[in-house]
Amino acid sequence: MIPRYSRPEMTSIWEPQTRFRIWFEIEAYACDALAELGVIPKESAKNIWDKADFVKFDVARIDEIERVTKHDVIAFLTHLAEFIGPDSRFVHQGMTSSDVLDTCLAVQLSRAADLLIADVDALLAAIRKRAHEHKFTPSIGRSHGIHAEPVTFGLKMAQAYAEFTRARERLVTARKEVATCAISGAVGTFANIDPRVEEYVAHKMGLVPEPVSTQVIPRDRHAAFFATLGVVASSIERLATEIRHLQRTEVLEAEEFFSAGQKGSSAMPHKRNPVLTENLTGLARLVRGMAIPAMENVALWHERDISHSSVERMIGPDATVTLDFALARLTNVIDNLVVYPENMKKNLDKLGGLVHSQRVLLALTQKGVSREDAYAMVQRNAMPVWRGEGEFRTLLGADPDVSAKLSPAELDELFDLSYHFKHVDTIFRRVFGE
Amino acid sequence: MIPRYSRPEMTSIWEPQTRFRIWFEIEAYACDALAELGVIPKESAKNIWDKADFVKFDVARIDEIERVTKHDVIAFLTHLAEFIGPDSRFVHQGMTSSDVLDTCLAVQLSRAADLLIADVDALLAAIRKRAHEHKFTPSIGRSHGIHAEPVTFGLKMAQAYAEFTRARERLVTARKEVATCAISGAVGTFANIDPRVEEYVAHKMGLVPEPVSTQVIPRDRHAAFFATLGVVASSIERLATEIRHLQRTEVLEAEEFFSAGQKGSSAMPHKRNPVLTENLTGLARLVRGMAIPAMENVALWHERDISHSSVERMIGPDATVTLDFALARLTNVIDNLVVYPENMKKNLDKLGGLVHSQRVLLALTQKGVSREDAYAMVQRNAMPVWRGEGEFRTLLGADPDVSAKLSPAELDELFDLSYHFKHVDTIFRRVFGE
Amino acid sequence: MIPRYSRPEMTSIWEPQTRFRIWFEIEAYACDALAELGVIPKESAKNIWDKADFVKFDVARIDEIERVTKHDVIAFLTHLAEFIGPDSRFVHQGMTSSDVLDTCLAVQLSRAADLLIADVDALLAAIRKRAHEHKFTPSIGRSHGIHAEPVTFGLKMAQAYAEFTRARERLVTARKEVATCAISGAVGTFANIDPRVEEYVAHKMGLVPEPVSTQVIPRDRHAAFFATLGVVASSIERLATEIRHLQRTEVLEAEEFFSAGQKGSSAMPHKRNPVLTENLTGLARLVRGMAIPAMENVALWHERDISHSSVERMIGPDATVTLDFALARLTNVIDNLVVYPENMKKNLDKLGGLVHSQRVLLALTQKGVSREDAYAMVQRNAMPVWRGEGEFRTLLGADPDVSAKLSPAELDELFDLSYHFKHVDTIFRRVFGE
Amino acid sequence: MIPRYSRPEMTSIWEPQTRFRIWFEIEAYACDALAELGVIPKESAKNIWDKADFVKFDVARIDEIERVTKHDVIAFLTHLAEFIGPDSRFVHQGMTSSDVLDTCLAVQLSRAADLLIADVDALLAAIRKRAHEHKFTPSIGRSHGIHAEPVTFGLKMAQAYAEFTRARERLVTARKEVATCAISGAVGTFANIDPRVEEYVAHKMGLVPEPVSTQVIPRDRHAAFFATLGVVASSIERLATEIRHLQRTEVLEAEEFFSAGQKGSSAMPHKRNPVLTENLTGLARLVRGMAIPAMENVALWHERDISHSSVERMIGPDATVTLDFALARLTNVIDNLVVYPENMKKNLDKLGGLVHSQRVLLALTQKGVSREDAYAMVQRNAMPVWRGEGEFRTLLGADPDVSAKLSPAELDELFDLSYHFKHVDTIFRRVFGE
Repeated sequence: MIPRYSRPEMTSIWEPQTRFRIWFEIEAYACDALAELGVIPKESAKNIWDKADFVKFDVARIDEIERVTKHDVIAFLTHLAEFIGPDSRFVHQGMTSSDVLDTCLAVQLSRAADLLIADVDALLAAIRKRAHEHKFTPSIGRSHGIHAEPVTFGLKMAQAYAEFTRARERLVTARKEVATCAISGAVGTFANIDPRVEEYVAHKMGLVPEPVSTQVIPRDRHAAFFATLGVVASSIERLATEIRHLQRTEVLEAEEFFSAGQKGSSAMPHKRNPVLTENLTGLARLVRGMAIPAMENVALWHERDISHSSVERMIGPDATVTLDFALARLTNVIDNLVVYPENMKKNLDKLGGLVHSQRVLLALTQKGVSREDAYAMVQRNAMPVWRGEGEFRTLLGADPDVSAKLSPAELDELFDLSYHFKHVDTIFRRVFGE
Repeated sequence: MIPRYSRPEMTSIWEPQTRFRIWFEIEAYACDALAELGVIPKESAKNIWDKADFVKFDVARIDEIERVTKHDVIAFLTHLAEFIGPDSRFVHQGMTSSDVLDTCLAVQLSRAADLLIADVDALLAAIRKRAHEHKFTPSIGRSHGIHAEPVTFGLKMAQAYAEFTRARERLVTARKEVATCAISGAVGTFANIDPRVEEYVAHKMGLVPEPVSTQVIPRDRHAAFFATLGVVASSIERLATEIRHLQRTEVLEAEEFFSAGQKGSSAMPHKRNPVLTENLTGLARLVRGMAIPAMENVALWHERDISHSSVERMIGPDATVTLDFALARLTNVIDNLVVYPENMKKNLDKLGGLVHSQRVLLALTQKGVSREDAYAMVQRNAMPVWRGEGEFRTLLGADPDVSAKLSPAELDELFDLSYHFKHVDTIFRRVFGE
Repeated sequence: MIPRYSRPEMTSIWEPQTRFRIWFEIEAYACDALAELGVIPKESAKNIWDKADFVKFDVARIDEIERVTKHDVIAFLTHLAEFIGPDSRFVHQGMTSSDVLDTCLAVQLSRAADLLIADVDALLAAIRKRAHEHKFTPSIGRSHGIHAEPVTFGLKMAQAYAEFTRARERLVTARKEVATCAISGAVGTFANIDPRVEEYVAHKMGLVPEPVSTQVIPRDRHAAFFATLGVVASSIERLATEIRHLQRTEVLEAEEFFSAGQKGSSAMPHKRNPVLTENLTGLARLVRGMAIPAMENVALWHERDISHSSVERMIGPDATVTLDFALARLTNVIDNLVVYPENMKKNLDKLGGLVHSQRVLLALTQKGVSREDAYAMVQRNAMPVWRGEGEFRTLLGADPDVSAKLSPAELDELFDLSYHFKHVDTIFRRVFGE
Repeated sequence: MIPRYSRPEMTSIWEPQTRFRIWFEIEAYACDALAELGVIPKESAKNIWDKADFVKFDVARIDEIERVTKHDVIAFLTHLAEFIGPDSRFVHQGMTSSDVLDTCLAVQLSRAADLLIADVDALLAAIRKRAHEHKFTPSIGRSHGIHAEPVTFGLKMAQAYAEFTRARERLVTARKEVATCAISGAVGTFANIDPRVEEYVAHKMGLVPEPVSTQVIPRDRHAAFFATLGVVASSIERLATEIRHLQRTEVLEAEEFFSAGQKGSSAMPHKRNPVLTENLTGLARLVRGMAIPAMENVALWHERDISHSSVERMIGPDATVTLDFALARLTNVIDNLVVYPENMKKNLDKLGGLVHSQRVLLALTQKGVSREDAYAMVQRNAMPVWRGEGEFRTLLGADPDVSAKLSPAELDELFDLSYHFKHVDTIFRRVFGE
């Protein structure tokens, strides 16, 4: 998590103040539940809220205590006691540190997921807009980087829209994975705390109770969460790569917005580089790489060990902050993407009609030529075009085997672009539901 | 995928015969749909089924053709034509190779997911049985490998049950991710094939149509699938690690079944090693490692490139076959696990009652001692026990600050084991719903 | 490891016959050393070689025994005893299975490394040839996919040559990492076997003794080995990506060789796709992904656990076979790469001289203009060219600020291509030492 | 990189002030070389040092400029010009941003490597001390977590020493990989800058010239560097895991130092947890996970794209700072590790002599029993011991087949512990060279 690739709303989730605030709420709600169950005095529970609610927890002071106790939750509770006084003895009763830490992490990851889902929504809106804008803007479809057959730029956007719709669903699922609360005590047996406390705190914190915890919330949940972020990041890389390709000098079908004062290169004043999408490619690698340590975190020893903690202290903020930044940056790129329909048309025409080779092939088979023969007939007229030796339509017309099957008018008809776009409406209906 | 870690039902999904059979079905159903739409003669569509249905495709012959064409689907179609004759020209009409390949992969991965889900079901049944068998078998809970407080062996199993219930849900979701069909032609525009063909083939093959494909089915689906397998594998590692720990010589609370003729070591005849669960740990690493290449596959260039193909040829079989084997092996381990309740009890008593330290702490706070003071009082009586200098209950009784607050009878009551198990029923109800 | 991406010389290293042969040699050499030390009869040691040397070990028979003993080395020794008779009791004396297994793996990985080093040598030869062939073939250099300044195609090849020279060095280092022998007994203490046996076997098998083993050879060695393969694979991906880019329809500066019968697409007869380099991109992902499980193998428990074994059974063959195949395929691609110098020239001219913008910038600063001002002067004349509005040389000439500093002749001189190639010799000397 | 897991010397390498200082030196040395070559006035080169040398670069001001130019090096140069005045036009002449950035990264990674090597030296010293201290402290060797045969605690340390000696060599190699300088201009052709400038700057910055750069230093170097850090981290995990195992309640052969005020658990005052080594396990996962994005960085497009940059901005500091912290923490753990030789002895005796089973096996074979029969004889006397039914020495004595071959005195001799330690000196000589 570095400032350059961070946005404040997401980083604030991971700040000490936020963490201590969530810790306090978990403890205070637990006291409410304990008071309701008659375990601690109701007055004390109320007191805890009253005396601590307005206070800004002193992060430096907590750090100072931790340096002695080497235990963060105990340091926090000690500091909390400085505000609350004698009633502080009721705080954390029957609980273990992980009850606080893991439930807090659940709150943080859920909030992070909410932001990421909102990010995807904004991205989807941007993509949808560009998709409709260019629904019928012809563009060459490329497989293997080689011209294949016509598509529209809107279809490219529709594909991205469908992909990020899936990303959104995955994030919703991932959010559910981690949104559980554990207040189950030292090894998860509720020996010293009633399960109803967990239920109450879960409800108040917007979580559901973890069915069975073992001091910790099981880490397969977090592994699934971070693996999902890795998949979403990979989709970002895909769209970013598409744009990087489209901006190549020889292609130049689209371009990242280039602001007035911006400098592309310190040495070469003419450069306009797709630096944002290249940056997104790198950010995707980072988020993806965090899936593995998250999966390695699953196999904790027995009821728990703390090896997961350092991993999560780093990838918790890093993965969510980076992905949030990347989604926002991609939205910005899409919103401001400069699209060049005329260059798309120019590129589309580049191969002198070769992109229609399949239609010719099919037409020949429909005239009774075997697929094998038709393929050979088309290929022998296509290869010279590839070498710059002739024009596809002309060569076909001059091939006696072809012209024996297809009249000039029929051949002309096979070179019609709109033929390829007759189902764009169908696809848009599938993707956008309209 | 190596025979040692493979089971036939899963490997058969990935055999050439199976693949060619699925390819044929996709092609033949597509012909049915095309015939229904009047694009090709109904008689020809029927002919294709009739002439090819009983044939065993000759894998060697297809390979031979591929060596010339360097294209597997064309090689298959060429071979198919050798059976069907002239009607073969209607086969594959308007389709592209990926329509066949990607839809076939969807069928294979869906079937693989079905097997994996069944594997998890079998594992869940095994775990459930052991969980109820040992619902109230006392066992020490360990955090950081250090004795913490009592749990039951049934609770350990309940945790595993809950974890694999989540694994099952994730596999169901992962199956849905990949169970889509694309018959959309060269760049996904349906230029030469009606979308209704895709709908029909999808229906017949047990899939749903891919909303928008670009020659290929988008690879974020497969990334999500393989990432899920990595998470499930990590849960296998967790349970395997638990058993490896329990079988350690000093712990010996449970042991893998050791058959009569089996040899633990070529050099040391006394050895009985947890080799199955160690093996599972390694297999988990393998499956997990395949998540990354799967995610790197997402960012294909433009409408597609074929870099994903070699990755999937390897991890498709490897990840599913390995995970299938691992789940079955784990089920077998759980089914036959030798559990030693008496050793569990012996270990539980090892710390001379230290595992009750928290109860004493809480009892002191309930008697009005501040948490800080209570912690210190307990810790100063715990540390000698740790060093083997005395017994916890005795030391507490002899501490004037403690005995001022807690009578001998009250202290005795705090050392009662059943206190810890009063909510085992609650947890079992949550996990097993009973 | 699948046949499609395998070459026989490398796969043969991993075949059961090879493994059993190496096992036999390790055991037989150990007997020689034991005989020399007077531990076993010399006649018996000789007998072992004589009776077993010509035999083809029966893999199926060994498998059959293993199904009972569940231990591969014991199964092998049992089978070996069937040939040797009573003297077989001297075989494996004081040794542990891992002495055989790990030393065998060291032999296999060393041989694999030798093949990989030879592969890189062949690749280097191919690259060197193309580098010199195109030492002065002008080509546009691209940063961010955008035209930057001129390079030569030979320079691209020189870069690849330097990179694979490093790859070679890394493989030599990696080979050294794993080429150690351990014959140290049950937990590596030489309790039942003299260290001189290890020294002798190491010498005969072309290895060095492992300074301290703990039943197993430490797995940091293997982690370093497989991580190196991942880095080499990433370099393959780089060169493959370069070629994929160069073959793009709009760029077409180079092309993979396309054989006569080859078919680019089942649907589009005009296609010529860079499928080999795309394939290499995927293979690189596979090899790279194996670095992580190899690193996870390092932290075995105490003196050893066997979790590494399943990982190595898979990645041992998979990583080496795949990388061997990939290197050979890349060599083939480079050898047969069709280069289009005229297209390179055409692309180079595409930006109407913009690639000379830095030279103009520098010339202006040398005439006393501040860097800031010079940058602005150049950029304002470059941007219209970018938009297709004018030609760079002309616009500069018409800019009064520019022409006040640079005469028409001076400007012309700045547009000279050979200016960029004056240090190609220097670089070639650095890279090729000539 | 988070403060909790950071040490100031390493973090300071990555601070903006350090980076700008290195940038300045690169630029100023380049000016010296240019002046020496007569390209710029010597007075100007001197001026640059004089006017800028004492200044603290204003990071905030540079950030402010970058927000407009969106280019960090240009922002820096602009700020530098504010100090230097007109002579600033000679700065960066013929260079490109990457010349500065990549050479700076080389300096930073080299310095980081130096610190890491020093860290390993400190760790080696700590391990060596403990190794000699416990050279002959008997301890049970464990394979599969199961008692095998005796080792000494010193041997465990010797193994770790050998492993980190390898780690050190790898770091030295990794340092060499990245310690190169590139001052080669826009696309690495030296079009506008003499190669002698690169040679001079390389020399002054403690680097060697990169033989061929392409605007950037090739990223296979950095991939090799970060992969090496991942391997070193994995070795840390191994030693950390050993200690975590030794500290388990049932084993308790060693323990992390536990300071006076430290609290093991907020709930359980008796706990003393191996939290440092658990933490190291997590940190190892983090560093390991960064190897993959580093490898993905290799395949930049053509002469370069900037996707590597965001990855390196994060993993550059994160991997080095985390590994530095982890090595220092491990050194501290080893230095202060509390070792319990008496517990080691107790555990060693736990299996009632079973650890001597191999010696008995060998003795029987030396008496002429076949290996197969001897194995069976030993195993049938070992299994009851395993089940707690008898003592191994006694059972063997009572077995007629055994006693027919081995006299009571011979049997006794086989149970002698020192037998296992006769080669400890040999191993220490190999590892410590003494």
